[in-house]
Amino acid sequence: MDEFLSLVKFNDAGLVPVIAQDAKNGEVLMMAWMNRETLQKTVETGLMHYWSRSRRKVWLKGETSGHTQKVKEIRFDCDADTLLVKIEQKGGACHEGYRSCFFRVVRDGGKTISVSGEKLFEPESAYGAKKK
Amino acid sequence: MDEFLSLVKFNDAGLVPVIAQDAKNGEVLMMAWMNRETLQKTVETGLMHYWSRSRRKVWLKGETSGHTQKVKEIRFDCDADTLLVKIEQKGGACHEGYRSCFFRVVRDGGKTISVSGEKLFEPESAYGAKKK
Repeated sequence: MDEFLSLVKFNDAGLVPVIAQDAKNGEVLMMAWMNRETLQKTVETGLMHYWSRSRRKVWLKGETSGHTQKVKEIRFDCDADTLLVKIEQKGGACHEGYRSCFFRVVRDGGKTISVSGEKLFEPESAYGAKKK
Repeated sequence: MDEFLSLVKFNDAGLVPVIAQDAKNGEVLMMAWMNRETLQKTVETGLMHYWSRSRRKVWLKGETSGHTQKVKEIRFDCDADTLLVKIEQKGGACHEGYRSCFFRVVRDGGKTISVSGEKLFEPESAYGAKKK
């Protein structure tokens, strides 16, 4: 763990961006942030733990919805300031019910936005009345 | 363009993280940043323009090496604060000569780092003595 953790460059806020990619079909599911603590937890437990910037707390992905992310492979880029983690996604990654958070596509040179993504659940059923 | 640009949430530094993914095989090639100007240039020209944070200037990807990135599809996430662009990559995306910047893999629970990625060129041949 030390070798890896010593290489990662966290930004001024102590965070590193993390891209979560479906290990099977290569779909990019989401991008979120980790600090040193949540990266360590992720490596140790094999489950993605992010740092929630809005709630300012450790965020075990799927803690409410059950839609956890199992780590299959961790990669990092040439500058060591971005991580790419291949994962096994249970249910949908997106709190809006989609498999991927990137369910909106830009069309017509930016004039139109359309929804193009697999919707797996209704947010209410996973998070109750209060959305994450 | 207005519809899209009005939705994107730039951070306090006026930047948005952009994931570049190979449109054909789904490989994640790099992550870099765009500001409003370079995002606009990207949409208008169909070629990826980033904001170089280190050089503090517009960075047409491939301007020195010829390894340009042609836009195939632009997506953005549920929070509209991260972009995912599917691209056609000429040559390698990484200035270290690899096809993807994510050529290092974490092994043994973080104790070992190994190189696992396709190397396409020697940096010296693409950038001369001075590396980008």
